[in-house]
Amino acid sequence: MKKIQQNKIMCSRWFQSLRNLICKEIEALEESSVKFKRKKWFRNPNGSENMGGGEMSVLRGDTFEKAGVNISTVFGSISTNLKGKIPGTDNYNKFWASGISVVIHPFSPKIPAVHMNTRHIITKKSWFGGGMDITPTDLKSKESERIAKYFHDNLKKICEENKKGSYKDYKKWCDEYFFLPHRNEPRGLGGIFYDYLNSKNWDTDFNFTKKVGKTFIDSYKNIVTRTKNKKWNEKDKDLQLHRRSRYTEFNLLHDRGTKFGLQTNGNIDAILMSLPPATGW
Amino acid sequence: MKKIQQNKIMCSRWFQSLRNLICKEIEALEESSVKFKRKKWFRNPNGSENMGGGEMSVLRGDTFEKAGVNISTVFGSISTNLKGKIPGTDNYNKFWASGISVVIHPFSPKIPAVHMNTRHIITKKSWFGGGMDITPTDLKSKESERIAKYFHDNLKKICEENKKGSYKDYKKWCDEYFFLPHRNEPRGLGGIFYDYLNSKNWDTDFNFTKKVGKTFIDSYKNIVTRTKNKKWNEKDKDLQLHRRSRYTEFNLLHDRGTKFGLQTNGNIDAILMSLPPATGW
Repeated sequence: MKKIQQNKIMCSRWFQSLRNLICKEIEALEESSVKFKRKKWFRNPNGSENMGGGEMSVLRGDTFEKAGVNISTVFGSISTNLKGKIPGTDNYNKFWASGISVVIHPFSPKIPAVHMNTRHIITKKSWFGGGMDITPTDLKSKESERIAKYFHDNLKKICEENKKGSYKDYKKWCDEYFFLPHRNEPRGLGGIFYDYLNSKNWDTDFNFTKKVGKTFIDSYKNIVTRTKNKKWNEKDKDLQLHRRSRYTEFNLLHDRGTKFGLQTNGNIDAILMSLPPATGW
Repeated sequence: MKKIQQNKIMCSRWFQSLRNLICKEIEALEESSVKFKRKKWFRNPNGSENMGGGEMSVLRGDTFEKAGVNISTVFGSISTNLKGKIPGTDNYNKFWASGISVVIHPFSPKIPAVHMNTRHIITKKSWFGGGMDITPTDLKSKESERIAKYFHDNLKKICEENKKGSYKDYKKWCDEYFFLPHRNEPRGLGGIFYDYLNSKNWDTDFNFTKKVGKTFIDSYKNIVTRTKNKKWNEKDKDLQLHRRSRYTEFNLLHDRGTKFGLQTNGNIDAILMSLPPATGW
């Protein structure tokens, strides 16, 4: 089998096993007996052509008001309006993309919301991309600072192991990306964001992508354990709903993934899975 | 005084008195003793140039979970990125705009949400625009159909009085505008939408705009009176939050006013005043 075919299989299998791991860990942390519900979807379900698809997993519990884990592997021809806008598509119109996307909105305002996604894309070029960021309710409290420091320290470790100096770049990319220009506010307390990663060594890049996924669930598990029994009051809840309103504004007004998904007629429920369960303006 | 100066004054005064009327009627319908809170804002507050501004009125009560009424009168130079995109700005870079915008989200799912706005814009050309639309919680119930019919009948009357055949056109415009393509769903049960209205008789067009405003508050007052004491249950409330999530998606993903406001660095609180007080995905 050609190396590229093997890579595709290894990648999509990894995203599936990471999905299984994340769902298992979240279910173990969830106080109620509620489990993730799975739903498969197919691109072009009525057409004859197989264009791939994905699987959504959503849990609506007591600890986690809404936790969503999407995996998808899609492929086919690039639509004319996107041709040339994606690397390696100037004189080439096929693509393959596989990835995982996670967004968790806990019920307690003391547990931070979190987002992670990683993906591998193949056109005439190929690359990895992804990242994660954390959104505590109160962006300015000492406790949020401590949590963010722990989250960032773990990320720094894997970034620097992979490539010296990369943490600073990926952190900056994240800060710039998860920013609401119309509010002049960050969405949360950041993390890392990277794209077009291709070191010419596929295995190295794939291993980094795997570490990002594992570090995500390990870090978040510890953060949930540390915060889940903390007392909170109505003021904390109000601030959480406010934070979520900003999260929604970001995702609908600015997020590239949302725009890309809507432009390419992606699965609407999967695209908007990230939106919070209860919010308000 | 030149006719155009008189028109500007008459217009902005009308929007102000309509604002006063709407706030008075909404306060009279509100069960609690909560009143509208007013907040003025200025364009370019730190600069030396007067570029106009506006006034927001927001009521957060028991009957009306959130009711917002904005008026604004703004003027100045057109930014380069908008030049030529607005009628009468090809070789002309000044504009004047005055308008009113109303969005009401009642607490009871039995009372429909409603939106209305009207405006007058002057560049090298000048025109009126506006409209209104109604969003009952359940888009398919018999009661919602009855309410929508009453709302539409009142609109049809004033449209046809002003111009034969215009109701059909304005209704169609509204249906096309307040539509969520990514959901393949309407936002609500419609109303009217019109733009670039200039019949060459300013007084006729201004009178129509005034009638739109008065018909709005008269119709909505009757609808609130008719629905405010109706019993509702948790299922109705859940459907209301669902309806509001669609409302939010429309306003952040598609609404021209939102996009225009964000592009022109408008007042962010006024632009996003339309977003619902409690919703969820």
